[in-house]
Amino acid sequence: MEKLHSLYYVLEMAGTFAFAISGATAARKRNLDLFGICAIAFIVACGGGIIRDLCIGATPPAGLTNWPYLVVALIATGLTVGLFSLVELLHRPVLVFDAIGLSLFAVTGAEKALHYGHNGEVAILLGVTTAVGGGVLRDVLLTRVPVIMEKEIYASAALIGAIIVVLGNYLKWVSGDLAAIIALLVCFSLRILALHYHWNLPTPVDKKASPDKKDGLDKG
Amino acid sequence: MEKLHSLYYVLEMAGTFAFAISGATAARKRNLDLFGICAIAFIVACGGGIIRDLCIGATPPAGLTNWPYLVVALIATGLTVGLFSLVELLHRPVLVFDAIGLSLFAVTGAEKALHYGHNGEVAILLGVTTAVGGGVLRDVLLTRVPVIMEKEIYASAALIGAIIVVLGNYLKWVSGDLAAIIALLVCFSLRILALHYHWNLPTPVDKKASPDKKDGLDKG
Amino acid sequence: MEKLHSLYYVLEMAGTFAFAISGATAARKRNLDLFGICAIAFIVACGGGIIRDLCIGATPPAGLTNWPYLVVALIATGLTVGLFSLVELLHRPVLVFDAIGLSLFAVTGAEKALHYGHNGEVAILLGVTTAVGGGVLRDVLLTRVPVIMEKEIYASAALIGAIIVVLGNYLKWVSGDLAAIIALLVCFSLRILALHYHWNLPTPVDKKASPDKKDGLDKG
Repeated sequence: MEKLHSLYYVLEMAGTFAFAISGATAARKRNLDLFGICAIAFIVACGGGIIRDLCIGATPPAGLTNWPYLVVALIATGLTVGLFSLVELLHRPVLVFDAIGLSLFAVTGAEKALHYGHNGEVAILLGVTTAVGGGVLRDVLLTRVPVIMEKEIYASAALIGAIIVVLGNYLKWVSGDLAAIIALLVCFSLRILALHYHWNLPTPVDKKASPDKKDGLDKG
Repeated sequence: MEKLHSLYYVLEMAGTFAFAISGATAARKRNLDLFGICAIAFIVACGGGIIRDLCIGATPPAGLTNWPYLVVALIATGLTVGLFSLVELLHRPVLVFDAIGLSLFAVTGAEKALHYGHNGEVAILLGVTTAVGGGVLRDVLLTRVPVIMEKEIYASAALIGAIIVVLGNYLKWVSGDLAAIIALLVCFSLRILALHYHWNLPTPVDKKASPDKKDGLDKG
Repeated sequence: MEKLHSLYYVLEMAGTFAFAISGATAARKRNLDLFGICAIAFIVACGGGIIRDLCIGATPPAGLTNWPYLVVALIATGLTVGLFSLVELLHRPVLVFDAIGLSLFAVTGAEKALHYGHNGEVAILLGVTTAVGGGVLRDVLLTRVPVIMEKEIYASAALIGAIIVVLGNYLKWVSGDLAAIIALLVCFSLRILALHYHWNLPTPVDKKASPDKKDGLDKG
């Protein structure tokens, strides 16, 4: 039990690091300044958890009170700014860390919501939010449609992970810790397989309409 | 009283459905994948109420704990993906449902804030937020300027509805339920008339300046 | 002490006014309607404080309960819509007021977080959020990359102000009020000097990659 939480902590820092790298890289490519890169790195790493904590009433959010998240985000920023060629070399391990972060945040997000006494629906929705919320905020701040809504099995892997946690908690077939480990492994495997085989969710194609034509919106 | 709340419930589901349809349709037109369409449909339906609940300290937000909202959003997504021609045929009824949702969310949003003991300003601002917040989140996620800020009497109808609720509550000329019904009817009528006659709020036109020229912003 | 808080109040209203003017001006340039201009003006003026209050559990947020903020935002909107040439003439004083708002919001934001019993990290992060959050929301709603992340010493001045408040509180070399005044003066001077001399934070330039090319994102 104690060991499991130490393991969680190591995995959480690896995930935080990968999320921060993805934020810093995207921000750097958009030519943000140093503050902007730090801010986006931190928001990707902690944004999902902050939204979850606001929704379950856990104020102040853990992402704001625990300095290791901030330090990891700053290290990721430093690497991305100072040693960008290294970060590009680390592209593949970072994708694996990112899958670790996705799985772990989905599982711990759902567990935290249950722990606060909320129902299964809240736990599932906030598990997914914890896992993907930071990335969505990154894309909104960089004014692009959230990439998780367009392609690849990403949020859906988190969804399945969160559902397994909640089912494990309700059905009690296995202990909560075992359910969490199964959820972690399923979510992680699904994500890695999706990356490897380029699995995508179906996109309902709309041949007639070009984007937004019908709304007559003039995008600024 | 009891009957009124049953009526509210039916209207709320109709409004939720229309909001979710608007989200799913916009997401489909931007070629989001299935997860993205579900997510946007749910966010349009529940996002305004979630922001309201965070602001009044009602955690977890009702939109996350009550499964009917989620189910209605999923049904709307299913229809939009599977039977898009039907959804297009239903364009007009959906606009009427949307006006119902707008009115009801403005009224119930303002009432909930008052019920939590907050003042009239909070109730008015959060009534409007409940009604239009989901649509604003949809537009932000799809990277377009919120349509409610550009054209048509929409948010302003919600504003008038919320103001009537608050005035009714302070002045006590009529019972709270009667004030709510008046607010609903005024907001709904205003919205339907605005749709029919293409009423718009004035837009201060700025002949000299092209958008953003003065800021010298280089948009990413 | 009492006098200091009266002074704070005057400065806060000046800052709120400048923030609202910046919101209303940007919204007007994007051809939003009257409701949209009011909404953006109010969000720039109060958005940062609302996010702070949600994060420290101070619900409902002060920006929603205190009518003077709303009134100042409406006056700024009225001026921007009705007397735009005057607002353009006032460009320079508004920049000074904006620097006042930036400094004061960073300092009072950090102080409020400390006052609620949160740690120094929360106070620093939320001090900066209070100061720049409204401007970030404005840019997100107008679908542009937040300008504070791209250029000029702005958020970093707020960061230094918030750090001084927290250091003053921990080290207790000086009284809290004196630390606040020092923080205000440092942040304000830094911002004004940065404006005058066009100081920028370094932007790591990425010669090889054009924005987003590597992600292969097709922006909607």
